[in-house]
Amino acid sequence: MWKALDIEEWQERRRSDLAGVGAAVAAIVEGVRKDGDEALYRFTKEFDRIVLEDLAVTPEEFEGAYEEVEDSLIESLAEAEAHIRRFHELQRNRSLWLEEVEPGVIVGVKTTPLDRIGAYVPGGRAAYPSTALMTTVPAQVAGVPEICVCTPPPVHPLTLVALDIAGVDECYRVGGAQAIAAMALGTESIDPVQKIVGPGNVYVTAAKMMLREHAEIDFPAGPSEIGILADSTADPAFVAADVLAQAEHDPHAGCVLITTDAALPAKVGAEIKRQMKNAPRRSIIEAALGNSGYVVAADLDEAIAAMDYVAPEHLSIQVADPLSTLNAVHNAGSIFVGPYTAVAFGDYASGTNHVLPTAGFARVFSGLDVHHFCKTSSVQMIDREGLEWLGGVVETLATAEGLHAHAESVRIRRRKKD
Amino acid sequence: MWKALDIEEWQERRRSDLAGVGAAVAAIVEGVRKDGDEALYRFTKEFDRIVLEDLAVTPEEFEGAYEEVEDSLIESLAEAEAHIRRFHELQRNRSLWLEEVEPGVIVGVKTTPLDRIGAYVPGGRAAYPSTALMTTVPAQVAGVPEICVCTPPPVHPLTLVALDIAGVDECYRVGGAQAIAAMALGTESIDPVQKIVGPGNVYVTAAKMMLREHAEIDFPAGPSEIGILADSTADPAFVAADVLAQAEHDPHAGCVLITTDAALPAKVGAEIKRQMKNAPRRSIIEAALGNSGYVVAADLDEAIAAMDYVAPEHLSIQVADPLSTLNAVHNAGSIFVGPYTAVAFGDYASGTNHVLPTAGFARVFSGLDVHHFCKTSSVQMIDREGLEWLGGVVETLATAEGLHAHAESVRIRRRKKD
Repeated sequence: MWKALDIEEWQERRRSDLAGVGAAVAAIVEGVRKDGDEALYRFTKEFDRIVLEDLAVTPEEFEGAYEEVEDSLIESLAEAEAHIRRFHELQRNRSLWLEEVEPGVIVGVKTTPLDRIGAYVPGGRAAYPSTALMTTVPAQVAGVPEICVCTPPPVHPLTLVALDIAGVDECYRVGGAQAIAAMALGTESIDPVQKIVGPGNVYVTAAKMMLREHAEIDFPAGPSEIGILADSTADPAFVAADVLAQAEHDPHAGCVLITTDAALPAKVGAEIKRQMKNAPRRSIIEAALGNSGYVVAADLDEAIAAMDYVAPEHLSIQVADPLSTLNAVHNAGSIFVGPYTAVAFGDYASGTNHVLPTAGFARVFSGLDVHHFCKTSSVQMIDREGLEWLGGVVETLATAEGLHAHAESVRIRRRKKD
Repeated sequence: MWKALDIEEWQERRRSDLAGVGAAVAAIVEGVRKDGDEALYRFTKEFDRIVLEDLAVTPEEFEGAYEEVEDSLIESLAEAEAHIRRFHELQRNRSLWLEEVEPGVIVGVKTTPLDRIGAYVPGGRAAYPSTALMTTVPAQVAGVPEICVCTPPPVHPLTLVALDIAGVDECYRVGGAQAIAAMALGTESIDPVQKIVGPGNVYVTAAKMMLREHAEIDFPAGPSEIGILADSTADPAFVAADVLAQAEHDPHAGCVLITTDAALPAKVGAEIKRQMKNAPRRSIIEAALGNSGYVVAADLDEAIAAMDYVAPEHLSIQVADPLSTLNAVHNAGSIFVGPYTAVAFGDYASGTNHVLPTAGFARVFSGLDVHHFCKTSSVQMIDREGLEWLGGVVETLATAEGLHAHAESVRIRRRKKD
């Protein structure tokens, strides 16, 4: 199952088949559009097998959640939240910069948070408090005043504690395509949002793509994946540990090792076998290893080029000179440099965001960050001196484009005497 | 025709009816998908009434274009290009920043340009060399190696001179939804792009929205518009000149004056009447004034709130203290501060980008900028010291989420002796 891969063919299979669920998702969206809250109760009963009494999580439930979570876990969540906040604060732009580029000509950019965003936090069988932090903290750092969270029932106390630590108190117990439709279109209980972020299954992703005219999204995302760039200096045990950590996420997870060392794949394969013996999620790992394997490259340049083609969600760099490889790679959601940087650090604790583009989308999209929750306005301030300096260019070009009133709007100002 | 407006109702009408052209656009997209170049020739004959001999503009045509354009115009284009380049260089991020946030824990962000983008430059009846600059220069500043331009035939020499000044040499004579389909899906002559930017009519916008699974886009855009925030210190002649400049773009253009001075709308109305007498594009202006008007607000706060609702593509601030109003507004594509800052400066010469969100989309989207042509990867480097410092949090949280191999990937590194 740990085998040589054709990466083009491999990546072809990584793209989720959104078309396959299109009709089902369209019906859910239409149901929510027509019936609002009533559709959310109906779909939750149908898909989650849960009869809800109400949608919104109450303040009492948030408070009560702390009693069901161990103190050490609360402390770890608080620490992770602080690290995530710190990293995203480092990304934040000045809210306004202005620069006088010529006498009388000032230009700049004003950055403003969005008004209301929606975060989708997966749940159901498991709790993902880390995703609750990853989707909401950057929005808070950006200054978004209203953050709306949807997560499938039953809502786990860990998720509520994470949201509370992040300072978020608007949470609805609804998941799947119906949650995306509710946030994009609005219902009696859920006000519509401007943008929806967060990972989800193929139904969630298809609904996000379908409703982009109503609410912008972060990016399409599919099953999690890792790419490992390694040479003969890589530790096979560490590489195998990161492969297993990736594989345990999901039977559809994928792992690709691209190496210049022809002997490494077998060593990693042996380590995978050894380490997975006691893995509690062994059957998931075995399924995911079916979507995984290795490529042996002639040299590091070829290996890097192949990895740029893969554009993995997570990229682990395990080579002798990792910094020059970091400089050379183009496409990856998040990059983990050197032997001790386990990918799990990015999932929880280094502060970087774990909501990342998959399936090659890292060629085009950035992982979730503060900028996803802001928009910018360009600014210009021109005085009479700048008017003289720039006016001629505007008059010439506007006239050439046949836009005479544009030229006149400059001329009328130049004629003004005072 | 210059009348009081209900801005909610006004904005409702600003949204282009993309659904209305959906079937036509889907048929064009399907044609290009099936027949490639042959479909481009067919649709160009059908919609542009032009029988093309070839799609790609040749190096000789680029060179020959200079002979058909006046020297003063070439100089103005070169000056505009330099200003646009300068402003977008001010926006550019460092290509990599790293910060040691704790001993042994380094985090950062790597910024990388996209590989290949598509720019749509409108044309046909008129030439828009300024849009050729606005869509390609930011991509160049970002470092995008391949920039593909599509513009409807006949391609105007001014457009070719502008592209050449910007340093772009890949240009195809095809417009409309078929151009978007060609860039998103690829044909024999046109390689597919990762992202498509630039303004267009409702067919172009509908095609961009429809093909977002294949190529990301800048944002949905519709007819151009201006919002003017003014008090009793505003010069009615300047306000009217900016209204007329906006109105001459397109019969669907829209202008909204929101003012605290109840006497201003009539003064502006009189100035509009006076100035439009000699306007060469009078019939277009008259049609656009039908989509235009004013709102009188009780005070400046109310005026600003109303303008934030409008979220205009262009916002002109004509009040006594324009800087504090600049700080207070949230939503606008580009902001023009003070009496001498005609909106036409942003269209051509101040260096800011004129490809901007319309119809209220400035609440969520930024105008075109360098960041549209880049994506980022987060980075982390953790050594043995950092491993000890962060390891506990990862082990605790991974275990709580049931992801044992995640915890193990940290433990195996902590156990390592060397």
